[in-house]
Amino acid sequence: MSGIGFEILARDGMARAGRLLTAHGAIATPAFMPVGTAATVKAMTPDGVAATGAQIVLANTYHLMLRPGAERIAALGGLHCFMNWPGAILTDSGGFQVMSLAALRKLGEDGVEFRSHLDGSRHLLTPERSVAIQHLLGADITMAFDECTPFPAAREAVEASMALTLRWAERSRAAFDERPGHGIFGIVQGGVHDDLRRHAAERLVAIGFDGYAIGGLAIGEGQATTFAMVEASVPFLPTDRPRYLMGVGKPADIVGAVRRGIDMFDCVLPTRSGRTGQAFTREGTLNLRNARHADDRTPLDRLCRCPACSGFSRAYLHHLTKAREILASMLLTAHNLTYYADLMVDLRAAIAAGRLADFRLAGEAA
Amino acid sequence: MSGIGFEILARDGMARAGRLLTAHGAIATPAFMPVGTAATVKAMTPDGVAATGAQIVLANTYHLMLRPGAERIAALGGLHCFMNWPGAILTDSGGFQVMSLAALRKLGEDGVEFRSHLDGSRHLLTPERSVAIQHLLGADITMAFDECTPFPAAREAVEASMALTLRWAERSRAAFDERPGHGIFGIVQGGVHDDLRRHAAERLVAIGFDGYAIGGLAIGEGQATTFAMVEASVPFLPTDRPRYLMGVGKPADIVGAVRRGIDMFDCVLPTRSGRTGQAFTREGTLNLRNARHADDRTPLDRLCRCPACSGFSRAYLHHLTKAREILASMLLTAHNLTYYADLMVDLRAAIAAGRLADFRLAGEAA
Repeated sequence: MSGIGFEILARDGMARAGRLLTAHGAIATPAFMPVGTAATVKAMTPDGVAATGAQIVLANTYHLMLRPGAERIAALGGLHCFMNWPGAILTDSGGFQVMSLAALRKLGEDGVEFRSHLDGSRHLLTPERSVAIQHLLGADITMAFDECTPFPAAREAVEASMALTLRWAERSRAAFDERPGHGIFGIVQGGVHDDLRRHAAERLVAIGFDGYAIGGLAIGEGQATTFAMVEASVPFLPTDRPRYLMGVGKPADIVGAVRRGIDMFDCVLPTRSGRTGQAFTREGTLNLRNARHADDRTPLDRLCRCPACSGFSRAYLHHLTKAREILASMLLTAHNLTYYADLMVDLRAAIAAGRLADFRLAGEAA
Repeated sequence: MSGIGFEILARDGMARAGRLLTAHGAIATPAFMPVGTAATVKAMTPDGVAATGAQIVLANTYHLMLRPGAERIAALGGLHCFMNWPGAILTDSGGFQVMSLAALRKLGEDGVEFRSHLDGSRHLLTPERSVAIQHLLGADITMAFDECTPFPAAREAVEASMALTLRWAERSRAAFDERPGHGIFGIVQGGVHDDLRRHAAERLVAIGFDGYAIGGLAIGEGQATTFAMVEASVPFLPTDRPRYLMGVGKPADIVGAVRRGIDMFDCVLPTRSGRTGQAFTREGTLNLRNARHADDRTPLDRLCRCPACSGFSRAYLHHLTKAREILASMLLTAHNLTYYADLMVDLRAAIAAGRLADFRLAGEAA
């Protein structure tokens, strides 16, 4: 098999349940990808990540190229071996983080020159270099190098940025080395403008990618606009290729996007929240720092199968959170990733049963 | 069975290999007890602690009485249930930490009045209250309330402090509620004076405890003096009762103390070192922050069975340590506790084989 296989097993409205076939196994979709920024999903062992139900993780090109370095990881056997993660890996292109984290950025037609936020060292990231780094890492899914358009921005700026992203997409595609089970996704930009989103989608499809991401969203535009941009993009993407909404999101964002035809998600929310005492549960979101949990013998979520819920009380998790113990981050991250993984299981089951219209999160209006 | 059972299975010189029998299982001795200060062995799940081979952990009365509170833990089912640790628990008396951490301490015949280092709240710790707190926690092994004599100190001060500790030992013993599988240990103080150590040991034996600790050491007096004080105490302790050297130590300290008749140890070294990038290995101690590990594909310790050694390279652990990732603390703590647990396995085997005299650590002179 060349490229990434994608089988659709069930449909319900715009939503699809399927399987993504990669060099590191099949991934049931819709899928949530835990974020493993620096070659580790924070506060989790790889075994622990797999136990949540995750089959694919995301790693960050920008962070890894700076530390420990892409060539070093390649010499050490690639990212799967380095981080001891046998499942699939999607790497981002570095475009988003170079613009949000790096110092002294200089954006040009060729790419972005910048200085490392860690040590001030000078680097150049181009479409070709981004794809080469992702190859060195051994990513199952490579992302085309893009410019994540800021929000808000004038239409002219958005248009110019989108046009640059499309030229970079063409260069990224050309630089990608085809291998069985490995693929490259293009990224639809276009800000909050329906027509730019459509144009970007059509141009990317003309280039031809293994999958299509919708980027530059969930950066402050609000859920209604996010959904509107998904609706402006999806109809112009191939039905037989996976669709990935980047950086999304809260459980309700994911449910809404799945209803609109999205197959893949990533977000730091479950992991980051886990490190700040927040837990997603079937009864809604809990802040474990709240004193009302101090004497509560019940688990976080009675229906959850995770290590936090099967072994510990809310009172204990409150204590760990207040005492800033590492175990609080470990248990709450495991719980939140399990919650997200189980949400995806439930969404896939709802699609297979043709009952996605009836799907409700805790506290969500019917 | 009332009290803590202790069976000696083998002897080699002064050293003994045996089993401690508690309400939460048998513990092979010599034993190392990981420190679980605030009802968690830092950066470890209870399953992970058990997987290292540890059968007993230590928890801190001072920390737990302040947060979340002993009565609260009792209402939540006791410390074993609260922290989900099915093995045995030894609690310290609070004496050491009240003197090192609390504010505005006022020491008197009755006990110590102090203010919490967390919120300034006022508390009184007496022998009776310390034993009651340890009962509320559900400790398998309770420690008598003592004053840990500072080092250095004038002989008169040491003598007065030891005498106070002996009066408190008597009150602690009287306050202890006998239950099957639960016991109370007395603590030998006496600074660096042979005759005071002997006197303290003899007086404690006259009171009668389930086991005997040697306290007030490993606080700057140096290994030779620590060993000398063990030698000054052990001959005056019953041969059929467990002996516990508090707060010790480095692997070489443990080996030397086992040779001198000690059965139990606790120390923050393996856990604290794990959080600062230091690993104990069969080839000596490694600092994972050192750049020489950056490209090293080998495991920390080729003979180690821990999750860090079975899944990851020194290069990856170096990367995690440099990036200050939580997983660095998790993996290195698991490794160091496994190293300590395996050291105790090896010491027990050497005693059983009558070959303790030949026992050598990496880098230790024959």
